[in-house]
Amino acid sequence: MDRMKLVLQYFQSNSESISNGICIILALVSVKLYTSFDFNCPCLPQYNKLYSLGVMIVPPIILFFLGVLVNRHTGVMMDEWMRPVGNRSKNPAVVKYLFSAMLQRAMLAPMVWILVTLMDGKIFICAFSVSVDPSLFSGLPNNTGLDVIKVMAKVPCKEDIIFRNSSFRKAVSRYVRCYSQAVGWSILLFLVVLGAMGRLVKPYFDDHATSLQTRYWSNYLDVEQKLFDETCVLHARDFARKCVVQFFDDMREDAVLHLPQPLIVSNP
Amino acid sequence: MDRMKLVLQYFQSNSESISNGICIILALVSVKLYTSFDFNCPCLPQYNKLYSLGVMIVPPIILFFLGVLVNRHTGVMMDEWMRPVGNRSKNPAVVKYLFSAMLQRAMLAPMVWILVTLMDGKIFICAFSVSVDPSLFSGLPNNTGLDVIKVMAKVPCKEDIIFRNSSFRKAVSRYVRCYSQAVGWSILLFLVVLGAMGRLVKPYFDDHATSLQTRYWSNYLDVEQKLFDETCVLHARDFARKCVVQFFDDMREDAVLHLPQPLIVSNP
Amino acid sequence: MDRMKLVLQYFQSNSESISNGICIILALVSVKLYTSFDFNCPCLPQYNKLYSLGVMIVPPIILFFLGVLVNRHTGVMMDEWMRPVGNRSKNPAVVKYLFSAMLQRAMLAPMVWILVTLMDGKIFICAFSVSVDPSLFSGLPNNTGLDVIKVMAKVPCKEDIIFRNSSFRKAVSRYVRCYSQAVGWSILLFLVVLGAMGRLVKPYFDDHATSLQTRYWSNYLDVEQKLFDETCVLHARDFARKCVVQFFDDMREDAVLHLPQPLIVSNP
Repeated sequence: MDRMKLVLQYFQSNSESISNGICIILALVSVKLYTSFDFNCPCLPQYNKLYSLGVMIVPPIILFFLGVLVNRHTGVMMDEWMRPVGNRSKNPAVVKYLFSAMLQRAMLAPMVWILVTLMDGKIFICAFSVSVDPSLFSGLPNNTGLDVIKVMAKVPCKEDIIFRNSSFRKAVSRYVRCYSQAVGWSILLFLVVLGAMGRLVKPYFDDHATSLQTRYWSNYLDVEQKLFDETCVLHARDFARKCVVQFFDDMREDAVLHLPQPLIVSNP
Repeated sequence: MDRMKLVLQYFQSNSESISNGICIILALVSVKLYTSFDFNCPCLPQYNKLYSLGVMIVPPIILFFLGVLVNRHTGVMMDEWMRPVGNRSKNPAVVKYLFSAMLQRAMLAPMVWILVTLMDGKIFICAFSVSVDPSLFSGLPNNTGLDVIKVMAKVPCKEDIIFRNSSFRKAVSRYVRCYSQAVGWSILLFLVVLGAMGRLVKPYFDDHATSLQTRYWSNYLDVEQKLFDETCVLHARDFARKCVVQFFDDMREDAVLHLPQPLIVSNP
Repeated sequence: MDRMKLVLQYFQSNSESISNGICIILALVSVKLYTSFDFNCPCLPQYNKLYSLGVMIVPPIILFFLGVLVNRHTGVMMDEWMRPVGNRSKNPAVVKYLFSAMLQRAMLAPMVWILVTLMDGKIFICAFSVSVDPSLFSGLPNNTGLDVIKVMAKVPCKEDIIFRNSSFRKAVSRYVRCYSQAVGWSILLFLVVLGAMGRLVKPYFDDHATSLQTRYWSNYLDVEQKLFDETCVLHARDFARKCVVQFFDDMREDAVLHLPQPLIVSNP
């Protein structure tokens, strides 16, 4: 119970933890979205690539901007950037730090979407089934009277009559899916190596004290904003209470003044 | 427990959080409504577009007005707009802020409805199956003795006899659904980019101090209204108690006055 | 409840326990990933080995770098290595100790992945089904018109038409899986014996007091960093509170100065 409270306090203490939480939730939502999204390839040679490209690119862009939108870092950064210079001089390093923090977190959900689509492979099959050389596989259905390219474009559509009980469709799908997964693993490998290298190599290039100070200031900005909001609410509540009490007091005085004269006279 | 209390306090503290919660619930309700709504296309050339248009436009309008209706911002805004100018001068910026906040929240549920229908694609198929060029797909049933347009209008009806075991129907459906999803993703992309840009660019155009002040005042109005309501209830209860006690006291006095005289005389 | 608290306190006390926890979670994630990963062999002679090699090598590398990335030891080590020499002289033994601790923990998840794939055997079947001598087993389908090597490459694909209801496929799979599991058990045996020997023999070669001191210092570094972070947050919160209170005080003074003159005159 005590621990629970500390954990929750941590999640409330600074914007970094809140942003982390939001980004993880967004990434999970993107996975959920992909699994519940009814992906259907048009199976027409001229539309397949376009549709696949759309599914591969548009949702990640949406998720990226959504990440920017819901990220607390964004607001803190814009406030710091736009605020008038008062007694505290502006530090571009803080803005840069907040910007990179925002960007990193906003990139998580799109990357998860792209990796999940690549691992699943359906979109890759839709996009590149036309580009596969059919001579690699045996059993191409040639009694349909269609061009080879039109037949290959129908590979992603499982329920099509042409491929009923055909192992050709499955073989082509397997082949393209292997490429898709290879691309997915490669991207993941690249990103993770980049991240690990970034963490190991970064200390060589920037001063440790400066980066600590930058982190401190970004945290300070966040806490300041939150305290300002809280104090505003308290102030408003205090002021409203005074006004309402004043109003009721006035009303009572009015009530006394408007009573018929004799009663007041008879009182003393 | 302590944390829970704080969270609940936050949800009670200002109208913004309550409105947010209501709007999210409304959006979820609209999704639930769509999935449980039994959409059935008439499959007649002259009615298809009309029915689809109705399903596409009427529920969002209903959800929009419902959003306006249940939104706390609406009440606060109307009160601020209509109140007599007392010692506190009216600030049009506050009304504008409240209006835009109300509009944004009321727009959420209709947008969710529209996006869900577009992603699902059923309504698009119903509306535009007549407009598809049937020569793009092989297997148009031509032994039915019907016009091409009447056949195309029957595409959304899965269980129709014409299309029993026909891959033509599925191909057309896939084709139109792709367009539907493309439109849906485009709208979503446009909205999210607009929102993100709005958040990033807004600080350039309006004074930060002014917007903070506006937010403070909108919060103040809300708190004032709530406190006024609470104080009213307390005051009414107080006044009613006095009246009731007065009534019972009067009744007792009446009872004493109406007793037969001899008894009172006999007492001393 | 009390026990739970102690366990959680242990997990917060030093970075070693956190790192251990993270590594165990990572290992479990790698198992979960393997079981939910849709492994599909291309079943083409020239691609089988490549694909298997990719699945066998790329994910462990990713998991290794992920382990390095999320490990708290990494950060502590880099800080200790890069910090300017102040009054406390740098101790290379501490860095070495932290490095070996980091490496050991980062190796856990990749080893689990490799062992699970070997125990499961699917990847081994995909890689080495071509290398099996088919004369060992009866029932090689020879009415397909394909090379023996192409037939053997299709062994990992269960649903292929060639092997429908064939016990030949099952026999080959069993045979290769036995090899796979033998390799897996051997690696596990080797690692465990190495670990046990390491623990038993190590005290002969290094001074116990020195290693205790090293462990103490590595723990100290971690605690120092954590305390610094906590103090930073507290300091920022304190400072922000002062600034906000100052702002509201200034505002109140402004309000007093802007009141109409008579009120101020009447005050004294």
